[in-house]
Amino acid sequence: MLKKLLTSLVTAGIILASSQTLAETQWRTVSPDNLMVMTLPHGKVVFELASQFSPKHVAHFKALAASGHYDGNKFYRVIDGFVAQAGPDESAPENKDKKSQTIAMESEWSLVKSPKITPVQSPDLFAEQTGFSGGFALASDSEANKAWLTHCPGVLALARGNEPNSGSSHFYITNGQAPRYLDRIMTIFGRVVYGMPHVQAITRTAVIEGEAPVDKADFTPIVNMALMPSLPASEQLVIQVEDTESAAFAKKLVDRRDRSHAFFYKKPPPVLDVCQVPVASRIVPANIDKG
Amino acid sequence: MLKKLLTSLVTAGIILASSQTLAETQWRTVSPDNLMVMTLPHGKVVFELASQFSPKHVAHFKALAASGHYDGNKFYRVIDGFVAQAGPDESAPENKDKKSQTIAMESEWSLVKSPKITPVQSPDLFAEQTGFSGGFALASDSEANKAWLTHCPGVLALARGNEPNSGSSHFYITNGQAPRYLDRIMTIFGRVVYGMPHVQAITRTAVIEGEAPVDKADFTPIVNMALMPSLPASEQLVIQVEDTESAAFAKKLVDRRDRSHAFFYKKPPPVLDVCQVPVASRIVPANIDKG
Repeated sequence: MLKKLLTSLVTAGIILASSQTLAETQWRTVSPDNLMVMTLPHGKVVFELASQFSPKHVAHFKALAASGHYDGNKFYRVIDGFVAQAGPDESAPENKDKKSQTIAMESEWSLVKSPKITPVQSPDLFAEQTGFSGGFALASDSEANKAWLTHCPGVLALARGNEPNSGSSHFYITNGQAPRYLDRIMTIFGRVVYGMPHVQAITRTAVIEGEAPVDKADFTPIVNMALMPSLPASEQLVIQVEDTESAAFAKKLVDRRDRSHAFFYKKPPPVLDVCQVPVASRIVPANIDKG
Repeated sequence: MLKKLLTSLVTAGIILASSQTLAETQWRTVSPDNLMVMTLPHGKVVFELASQFSPKHVAHFKALAASGHYDGNKFYRVIDGFVAQAGPDESAPENKDKKSQTIAMESEWSLVKSPKITPVQSPDLFAEQTGFSGGFALASDSEANKAWLTHCPGVLALARGNEPNSGSSHFYITNGQAPRYLDRIMTIFGRVVYGMPHVQAITRTAVIEGEAPVDKADFTPIVNMALMPSLPASEQLVIQVEDTESAAFAKKLVDRRDRSHAFFYKKPPPVLDVCQVPVASRIVPANIDKG
């Protein structure tokens, strides 16, 4: 039925040209030990952790999750188009022992020691160069000899106070236009590879003037935060993501820059916003019934 | 209770520095005749129509809405991070008479005849110059003597086939990172000024490989599309938006470019992504109980 509708719409010429060609996509299976599953009341969100870029944050986050630190936490700061932020409510008596250690920033690394980067755009508005590595969007500066993960939609990062190394366990997920001004001063340590619509369904706590405020009781809770292998076998998912080091992905970048589809009767500028290049995910077919 | 929680979080220093200063915001009341209300099963979405930029599209859209054209239509193409697109299913017998006239593009206009523009960024990645006018983000090119509305999150635009002037009534709302490559080749004729979280709650029709497809019966319908004055008095809202021509807004732009808050221990590059500058809305207080 769906297929029939879509076919008729395509025939009618009212489908906006598809933004990606999945035909030749090359896939990388994400190590289950690098997949953090956040269960919300309305569905599961899966993060791929950036072990290669922010190893200490990933170890810190894994340890917190394993200790049950996040279970029952709420998303207390959710601003449409910006971030959904969660963490323990330290003012609640039951959370007095939930204070976690602070951790030093890992917001950038030496460019010369960087994992291989597939280049995207130079210059970018915010950086000398943007690119992808291991599915993550990043940016770099050769003079400063630095590379860093960028705040594209769906990244997972540690919140902090004014002091650079003051982050402990509170985290945020970006849910709108990339807040690139946070690049290099916040540590990104993962990205959503499954369930972004569930992130978008988290109850907003910030309302506009004139609207009734949201009651704390209605904040979206985290039911459970656990590494994929620690879930019951029946709930485990095998997730693959587009291989951003593949020839197919490089071709996709070329295609997105040089729009040759007839839909583009006038070509857009030959530039790419690294945060507007989708990196696809899929569930390995054998696991459909496991979800 | 909410206030208490937020105060304790601010005290604990774990609130990411606020991205805007609302204290001095100057407001503009949107003409009710320019407010289109789209009622979804889960809430209302309000668009300010871009009468000053795309007058023919606005008149076309108003006429279609008044005729009941959109009532019962479904969002049949909803891709997370890209667009939510709706329109009549022409293959359904009951919609045979819902075919509407096509309309010629209004995707750009003469820069020298442009309404006043508050400048934001030059050069931008996609254009010589970006700015705001009447709450809308736009871009311009002096050599081409053109200005155009940009595809920031939450814009309302007409879908079309490959031919430039083939759009009729199907429309889309951008729901993710700005697809700026669609600038100048699609006609934007409004933007969401209320209810963006409801847009984000529209059921995604595009799933990833390995997930069960969404049944057409579960697509999100449009209950009603109507101009604000045509709603029952008890449902009408008075909406104000940030005055992007005000001194307060100009100061906000300066503040966002030159981050002086202690949170920014290292300043971000002095650039602004026009699509990452929030333009606030509010409901006029006297109308709270009317919602």
